[in-house]
Order: sequence, then structure tokens, then C-alpha cells
Amino acid sequence: MPSTSPTLTAERILEATEEVLRRHGPAKATVVDVARALGVSHGSVYRHFRTKAALREAVTKRWLDRTTGLLAEIAGASGRDAETRLREWLAALFAAKRRKAFDDPELFATYSVLTTETAETVVSEHIADLTGQLTAIVRDGVESGVFTAADPAVAAVAVFRATDRFHDPHYAREWERPGVQDDFDALVDLLLRGLRTR
Amino acid sequence: MPSTSPTLTAERILEATEEVLRRHGPAKATVVDVARALGVSHGSVYRHFRTKAALREAVTKRWLDRTTGLLAEIAGASGRDAETRLREWLAALFAAKRRKAFDDPELFATYSVLTTETAETVVSEHIADLTGQLTAIVRDGVESGVFTAADPAVAAVAVFRATDRFHDPHYAREWERPGVQDDFDALVDLLLRGLRTR
Repeated sequence: MPSTSPTLTAERILEATEEVLRRHGPAKATVVDVARALGVSHGSVYRHFRTKAALREAVTKRWLDRTTGLLAEIAGASGRDAETRLREWLAALFAAKRRKAFDDPELFATYSVLTTETAETVVSEHIADLTGQLTAIVRDGVESGVFTAADPAVAAVAVFRATDRFHDPHYAREWERPGVQDDFDALVDLLLRGLRTR
Repeated sequence: MPSTSPTLTAERILEATEEVLRRHGPAKATVVDVARALGVSHGSVYRHFRTKAALREAVTKRWLDRTTGLLAEIAGASGRDAETRLREWLAALFAAKRRKAFDDPELFATYSVLTTETAETVVSEHIADLTGQLTAIVRDGVESGVFTAADPAVAAVAVFRATDRFHDPHYAREWERPGVQDDFDALVDLLLRGLRTR
């Protein structure tokens, strides 16, 4: 009779799910595949994630959160110059997305499908996390007199939207083109000029 | 025996092609359908467009050029204030895309497929036309001392990229959301602050 392994954690299930997704693709991966990969019953998996949709949401969130975690350090370093941090943060976001797209294209394609399939809240929470980090940087800049922005949150969203081309997976194919780094730099320069106090 | 009607112009063929695409969708529309709609032989159509691909390219270009034509007037009014023109131009582009997406969603979906299918040159020429117009406005602004930009063409591309979310069909679903106009206005304000001479 299959029983829940004492070490079966949500994190282990999510790791296995990512592997199964990588191997079978998002269309074919099932909870039974995940359970088999872990050597447990599918009931054990359902004890942690009540539905297949919940499991997919959780694994997508985990993938998205990896980027958020990377950037949190830059956003949190409130002692440092806000302009430098804003540049670094945008460059780090672009670099993280490029790495995801090119180092593991199958997994990137899988998650690109999952982000359009899963509950919109997962993606919008991710975007709220990121724009929240940006808001913190803009607010620090306003407080130190480097930036001018009537509402740092509005300015942060504008900066995030303006750089869509350099983080939205829809544009992944553009990230390899010659000149993409120049385009990115020109855009960041323009946005920083827009934020800077005159 | 079918013969070429003396009034069979490329424009008439393209009009009929658009109707056929609207009716049958991009997957099913054929050159024979277009010829039938015009009451001519498919040979007559091929005399104007040598391949089905060439016909699809031409009809896509025509659809894209409608937007370019609308905006050319704003871009060309070099006597008027560059900042006002830049705002108007970006608003007109966003409005034109929204109209295309919502007034005739089937045709918009059809052309969204066609722009990803047809030779990339058609789309990149369209984008070059649009950024060329933007460059003219930025250059006028630099010449009249309103804007500062080391290279107006580079600044124009940055502005165009920054506003992708408000003209790239990929984001069409976002254009109906509440707050989209505020997001657009905040972004344009930020970009204009970035361009303005201090």
C-alpha cells in the first residue's frame, strides 16, 4: 500500500514537477508522472496540492519567484545610489530572462505556456512583486533628491511597462539580435533622464 | 473563357482578398476564393501577384500602411510644437490599434496571424516607416531646442520600444483594461520628460 514518505515536502514535489514538465512538456505532464518520479502515490501529491491546476500554479510561481529573489537584493540596498540601482535592477532583470530563455529553452517554452494557462493571479502577483521592488528604488531616489516623481508607484509601473520588450517572454526571440543591448541601453538612458531631478 | 477584366487592378484584388480573409480566416482563404469573389480566373489574380505568399504580403502591407498614413500628417506638420506632436502621434497610434482590435476583431485576428506568417521584411518595413516618422518629430524638437537627443533616430526607436505595450497586437487584450489610459499617459509623460531639454 503506497504511503506518504516522511520526507515528501512541497518543495520536493515542485522539483519533480519541473523535471516532469521538462521531459514531457506542459501538454502531456500529469500528476501520475510526478508521483511516479518521486516513487509515491498520486494521493500523496494531492495531499500537498489539491488539484493539478494548483500544482501547475505553484511550480510556475516558483519559477517566477526565482527572478524576483535575484532582484530583491538590488532593490533592498537602500543605502546605495538610486540611479545606479535602477540601472542594475533593469539590467539584472533582462539578464535573468535571457539566461532563462537561452540556457534552458525547453523549460522556458514550458513556462511560457504555463504562464498563459495558469490563473492570472500568479503572473499578476509576480508583476506586482517586481514593480514593488522598482517602486522602492524610485522612492529612495525621490527621498534622496535624485529623482522627481509625483507618485513613485506610477513611475515604477511606467518604467516596467516601458521595458516590456526586454523582459516579456513574448519578445524572447528579439533578445539574441545584434544591437539589442544598444537598444536596451538607449531606452534605460531615456527613462533615467525622465526620472532625474532637473 | 475567363479573361482579365480591364478594371482588375491590384487594389481591387487586395480589397477582395481582405473580404475573403475576413470570411474564411487566414488558414482557409485561397487565391481561387479571391478570383471567385471577383468573377475572374485565378490566372488573372496571379498576373498581379505571382504567388499566394506575395498576395498575402501585399494585403498585410496595405493593412499596416493604413496606420502609417494616418500618422504621417502629424509627423509631417513640422511647423507645430514637437512635444505636442509627439504626444498626438503616440496617442493616434494607440487609438488606431485599438480601433483595429475592437471595431473588427476577426480581421484584427486574421492580420495578427498574417504578420507573424509573412516575410519579416513587411513588418520591419512598417516599423521602419513608423520610427522614421518619430525620428522626424524628435529631430524637429532637437532643432527647435525643445528636445535633447544625441541621435534622434536612436531616441525615436527607444520611444517606440518603450510604448510597445500600447501598439504591439500581442498586448491587445490589455487595451480594454481599466486604467490602461492612465498607464499610457504616465509612460508618455516620463518619456517626454526624458526628451525635454533641461
